[in-house]
Amino acid sequence: MSASGPNGHGPNGHGGPNGHHGFGRVARKEDARFIRGQGNYVDDIKLPGMLYGAILRSPHAHARLLSVDTAAAEAHPQVRAVITGETLAGLNLAWMPTLSNDVQAVLATDKVRYQGQEVAFVVAETHYAARDALELIDVDYEALPPVVDARTALDDGAPLIRDDVEGRTDNRIFDWEAGDAEQTGRVFDDAEVVIAQDMLYPRVHPAPLETCGIVADMDKVTGKLTVHTTTQAPHAHRTVYALVAGLPEHKIRVVSPDIGGGFGNKVGIYPGYVCAIVGSIVTGRPVKWMEDRSENLMTTSFARDYHMRGEIAATRDGRIRGLRVEVLADHGAFNGTAQPTKFPAGFFHVFTGSYDIEAAHCAVTGVYTNKAPGGVAYACSFRITEAAYLVERMIDLLAAELGTDPAELRLRNLLRAEQFPYSSPTGWEYDSGDYPRTLRTAMDIAGYDELRAEQADRRARAADAREDGPLMGIGISFFTEAVGAGPRKHMDILGLGMADGAELRVHPTGKAVLRISVQTQGQGHETTFAQIVAHELGIPVDDVDVVHGDTDQTPFGLGTYGSRSTPVSGAATAVVARKVRERARIVAGAMLEADPEDLEWTPGRWIVRGDPSSGATMQEIAMAAHGSLELPDGVEGHLDATTVYNPPNLTYPFGAYIAVVDVDPGTGKVTVRRFIAVDDCGVRINPMIVEGQVHGGLADGVGMALMQVMAFDEDGNHLGASFMDYLLPTSMECPSWELGETVTPSPHHPLGAKGVGESATVGSPAAIVNAVVDALHPYGVRHADMPLTPANVWRVIQGRPFRTDLAIQ
Amino acid sequence: MSASGPNGHGPNGHGGPNGHHGFGRVARKEDARFIRGQGNYVDDIKLPGMLYGAILRSPHAHARLLSVDTAAAEAHPQVRAVITGETLAGLNLAWMPTLSNDVQAVLATDKVRYQGQEVAFVVAETHYAARDALELIDVDYEALPPVVDARTALDDGAPLIRDDVEGRTDNRIFDWEAGDAEQTGRVFDDAEVVIAQDMLYPRVHPAPLETCGIVADMDKVTGKLTVHTTTQAPHAHRTVYALVAGLPEHKIRVVSPDIGGGFGNKVGIYPGYVCAIVGSIVTGRPVKWMEDRSENLMTTSFARDYHMRGEIAATRDGRIRGLRVEVLADHGAFNGTAQPTKFPAGFFHVFTGSYDIEAAHCAVTGVYTNKAPGGVAYACSFRITEAAYLVERMIDLLAAELGTDPAELRLRNLLRAEQFPYSSPTGWEYDSGDYPRTLRTAMDIAGYDELRAEQADRRARAADAREDGPLMGIGISFFTEAVGAGPRKHMDILGLGMADGAELRVHPTGKAVLRISVQTQGQGHETTFAQIVAHELGIPVDDVDVVHGDTDQTPFGLGTYGSRSTPVSGAATAVVARKVRERARIVAGAMLEADPEDLEWTPGRWIVRGDPSSGATMQEIAMAAHGSLELPDGVEGHLDATTVYNPPNLTYPFGAYIAVVDVDPGTGKVTVRRFIAVDDCGVRINPMIVEGQVHGGLADGVGMALMQVMAFDEDGNHLGASFMDYLLPTSMECPSWELGETVTPSPHHPLGAKGVGESATVGSPAAIVNAVVDALHPYGVRHADMPLTPANVWRVIQGRPFRTDLAIQ
Repeated sequence: MSASGPNGHGPNGHGGPNGHHGFGRVARKEDARFIRGQGNYVDDIKLPGMLYGAILRSPHAHARLLSVDTAAAEAHPQVRAVITGETLAGLNLAWMPTLSNDVQAVLATDKVRYQGQEVAFVVAETHYAARDALELIDVDYEALPPVVDARTALDDGAPLIRDDVEGRTDNRIFDWEAGDAEQTGRVFDDAEVVIAQDMLYPRVHPAPLETCGIVADMDKVTGKLTVHTTTQAPHAHRTVYALVAGLPEHKIRVVSPDIGGGFGNKVGIYPGYVCAIVGSIVTGRPVKWMEDRSENLMTTSFARDYHMRGEIAATRDGRIRGLRVEVLADHGAFNGTAQPTKFPAGFFHVFTGSYDIEAAHCAVTGVYTNKAPGGVAYACSFRITEAAYLVERMIDLLAAELGTDPAELRLRNLLRAEQFPYSSPTGWEYDSGDYPRTLRTAMDIAGYDELRAEQADRRARAADAREDGPLMGIGISFFTEAVGAGPRKHMDILGLGMADGAELRVHPTGKAVLRISVQTQGQGHETTFAQIVAHELGIPVDDVDVVHGDTDQTPFGLGTYGSRSTPVSGAATAVVARKVRERARIVAGAMLEADPEDLEWTPGRWIVRGDPSSGATMQEIAMAAHGSLELPDGVEGHLDATTVYNPPNLTYPFGAYIAVVDVDPGTGKVTVRRFIAVDDCGVRINPMIVEGQVHGGLADGVGMALMQVMAFDEDGNHLGASFMDYLLPTSMECPSWELGETVTPSPHHPLGAKGVGESATVGSPAAIVNAVVDALHPYGVRHADMPLTPANVWRVIQGRPFRTDLAIQ
Repeated sequence: MSASGPNGHGPNGHGGPNGHHGFGRVARKEDARFIRGQGNYVDDIKLPGMLYGAILRSPHAHARLLSVDTAAAEAHPQVRAVITGETLAGLNLAWMPTLSNDVQAVLATDKVRYQGQEVAFVVAETHYAARDALELIDVDYEALPPVVDARTALDDGAPLIRDDVEGRTDNRIFDWEAGDAEQTGRVFDDAEVVIAQDMLYPRVHPAPLETCGIVADMDKVTGKLTVHTTTQAPHAHRTVYALVAGLPEHKIRVVSPDIGGGFGNKVGIYPGYVCAIVGSIVTGRPVKWMEDRSENLMTTSFARDYHMRGEIAATRDGRIRGLRVEVLADHGAFNGTAQPTKFPAGFFHVFTGSYDIEAAHCAVTGVYTNKAPGGVAYACSFRITEAAYLVERMIDLLAAELGTDPAELRLRNLLRAEQFPYSSPTGWEYDSGDYPRTLRTAMDIAGYDELRAEQADRRARAADAREDGPLMGIGISFFTEAVGAGPRKHMDILGLGMADGAELRVHPTGKAVLRISVQTQGQGHETTFAQIVAHELGIPVDDVDVVHGDTDQTPFGLGTYGSRSTPVSGAATAVVARKVRERARIVAGAMLEADPEDLEWTPGRWIVRGDPSSGATMQEIAMAAHGSLELPDGVEGHLDATTVYNPPNLTYPFGAYIAVVDVDPGTGKVTVRRFIAVDDCGVRINPMIVEGQVHGGLADGVGMALMQVMAFDEDGNHLGASFMDYLLPTSMECPSWELGETVTPSPHHPLGAKGVGESATVGSPAAIVNAVVDALHPYGVRHADMPLTPANVWRVIQGRPFRTDLAIQ
């Protein structure tokens, strides 16, 4: 099913054989422990003398905090400490930076601003005692009217949420725009066709299988703080702790053990983390704090919540000329955590997506509401998910208006191979691509024309016979991602760069240990990165161990999110392995009594040019380097190397997705009958892992399109605080995925790879929504907001859609 | 009391101020945990599910092993495994290499060859159960006549100890010689004076406060073996385990936590280690094995046991012309463990010591006896202790013969400053020194002439009055060490070089972590190495953490022994810190908008040459390197560096010691009244730590000279298996040490340092023995063998000395 794609061959011309010595479908090394139940997650960690923390949370979405009486809790025989906002204020720790030009309360001091906000932290001998003692804390609240609907947040007389900030008079966080408003206005003014549509990308949650947690262990003797925590970014956490708490950076060790999924949920620093650290300092003992499911869903980084209005301008014959977007962004009560872009709306910047559009403009306004903070996280490449959804819906609206096939309309407007590197209307430079080829590949796999014929046939029969059978819909989406966060043009966190280090040590027997700064949450780094080293050094994959997730053992870097592991750390790994190979060349020269310049690399060996009988393997070279071989003056006897990779540009993976759905008009139930996904993420190091990533993202897309939403009632009560209410897709809702690929190597990545972790999450919702809307075409439906639950679809069919984000209709 | 010595200033001309930012008397960082009882030693480690091992040992020195019945032990309800030689033979692990061209039994299969040899290993739920079960094992031995006296080992008809080796017919291990026998013979033939003397350097034991032990943890899921052990050389142990057991090197982690003293005792791999590892593999659980004191004294690397005959040739006016030595070396039942020199007699090679001697020759014969193996270890620089003792005793004998003052005789023959670099008669190149200056410094501190006057006065009064008061003795020794094992000319282990790595990571906030391959057993590496980095980078010592003792966290290297930490890893640390400083120069150039070549280093800052207002500190540079600063093309955004240092030569520390003793002729009791030690170890990084090392070594010398010996009875029974029998010196036996220094930097070490860990142990015994013999001069005593216990001295006074190594007289 591969349209092209030289798997197993790097663009550098010396790819090793598939499998054991490099790229290819190598079984995941980490699975040996996972499938045996031998993974080591934060909640598996039990330190001697460990205490347990629990958080008292606000039942109100907005209330003044009048008093917090902890006397009864403190008297509990198993309680060792009760920490309140007042305690933290005494340590100057009541508020913490969000890394998005804002602060967030660690424990509330003045008001509570969302349901579930942290009010007090109890540390006790057991988890049960800590929970019990929460009920002994007496808090006196004075309820205040909440802002629940973002669209009223800027109204005159709206309650002021952030009165903690001197001089603030309203709930506006920022106004941000990109593109040329004036030029875009001119294009719209003389356009032949203009379509406008309001749409919502609802508030959703990453919902990783493992919730967030920490074991904080302050060793007063050494002055060293060790933090075992579920973070996707150990070094970034360490630096934040160092800057916030004033602890020296080398006295903090952040260990991120096995992680049960992250999806962006584990980038930020949450109040519970700071509380556990303070708890360990106060008690002198290790303190574990582990969220329950409800806490995770209610309080840790949600995603999306974008109220968008799109306008598209085109010629009558289907040439898109302009795109204009206005967004009201609901950021909750505090402005995000860990949004390390330089732009308040993140990478919404690339909202023109995959199309050759003359003029574009977008304006995003961020507002505070009485909801939990977040916004960026959830496999979204920093708002590209919202942007990709918008443009793909607008194109289908345009196709419907023009009566053109949506595939045909896309082929007419997609960027063509010869346009790369392509500079977008907002100034971003896409690295490489051939978009029409990829869409055609997807259409071929789908049998697109046959599907349209089947649909036409069924519609005709339905119209004739008034049959009540399922409605068939076909939806397409094409997406372009911008991943590999690193370039200083786009990214900034704490004034630090986004470069990531790699260290490679080759032991005397030729076994290698790679240390990388990024951290896996299930992506298979222990395999993929070992393959890169094996590929570059010509040694077996099993001879390479990958160390990550421990700031004491790995070089500095910003961690795993935004699909950046392969684009940044993968590149660092290739660079450091090539440094080792070059060191090996010098040693091999001494071994073979040849000028190193006269050697050539054949996978696995340095040989005297043209003489394969003369070679030295990496193992032989490693032993010689550490051994009795006399090396030339100034050559050190080792093969180790260190590097830091600062990517020159983002990478731009892309893909074409086609969904085929059946909609039951009687119940509104949507069934995804087929789903075709053709991803182009450049060179694939381990195609099996790439496919696994795509499978997961597609399931995510099914979830977002059809069932996931975090809604609120008029008092700000969270209506999705358990998996009974917040629905996740299972294999029952997913079809058997049909995957394909094209391979357009990134020209600036040393392996030609681009990153694929989020592609399917970005690309799939629009395909499904487009398919459902397509299915409902006979009913005159032009748009419906996610999630397309049976109830929602049924009401859409009835012409009475409801707001999916609010229980207030 | 410093004769010279620019402490706090490296020879490189940019030394920082003493104390906080570099060299000087910085308090030891590690003591914070030691004095609070928070050190973490191997026996403190308790892993979940851990089992305990105990060893059944042979009561016989030499016996045939007829049968080992483990049935009753296996039936013990708490026993999880019983391992015998037969078990190990099935795994091809019954014998292990000693790294000295020999093998050693892990658990006996054919014979036992010394008292205490390992016969079986029991693994049980508790330490007590394991010990109890040992008594349930029924072993049938057939006793054989043992070889106890090395001087009979080569006799015709001596029992053959190593009949496991095909074709072996006697107990000879090796014959080795150095120097020119013929030339030396000619010098002796026409010498004006020739003196000969037999002497013994008795068998002694390092006796570290912490005995040897291991916690072996084989993780069957990951296939990774983690070994927590009391080793001085974690990487060497790892490589041996990899080569012996066939486990891949990157799947073995050797962790050496806090170590309670090593002194060479913790270099080797002992049978218990292999048994614990096999125990963990067999049971699937961690296994701890920890020696008791008796096991440590009886079975782990003893030291010395050199039966020497020295001959010295000189002119009548005291010019030494030749030195000839014959040695019978008792190596026990197996030839040593971990003797990583290329020479069977180690560094005895430099037996001409500190003197300008025209011709020299030595011959060493190694023999097997029915005693525990070992020989090298115990703060001895690989046999230099024996060599230094011999030459210093021979010079005193010559002085007595010539009627010359021993100080005067030494000054006449010591190597002078202009003779360096000095090539010894055996071809070793001493790096630097000015020996007469150092001896004169010691004589000044001692008030040598006044001491001799006092002695003459007391002798005269004693002779007149027949007073029975204490006899006063003055003893001198001058020693030259050869340390910093590394150069390929001298060293070899496993075919590996002896180079040691260092890695330096500078965090964004400017805090640094140094990773080194050597491992401390109390020497203060966490402080000294931090000082080197602080000195080179101009940052506070507290900002540098030192990581060591963990093969997963540190670069490859051969570990700490032979005073090699500062000579090798200290040099590596200076080199890697200078690499970082040079990287910082490039970053500072970008920060200051100057050509890096136009910058100059002032301690702590790179400044534009001549403009101190323009500088950037290391902290500022570190943040900029990781931060938003645009670096020149090809410059990576970090300051980290890696190096491996392969020393071009050994370093040669030296010193002059003077002991003043009082001997009670009635009881034979020796009191060390004063002890003056002037060490020249090149540049002193932390003079306080240097002095601590010297203090410890001097106490060692008191112990060896006056009380320590491992003697045997005629059946090979060990007569010193507890601290009741094997006596160690305490503060009661030690005077208040009087220290001085001269500083002759090593010309090839980047900091000019030489290493001092063993100097005092090497130099001090001869001074004390010389003083005691000097005290006994009125009785006509020319020589007495160590240890000079009261009983021994009393018998020497009576003219009936006894052999100190044997209970057979």
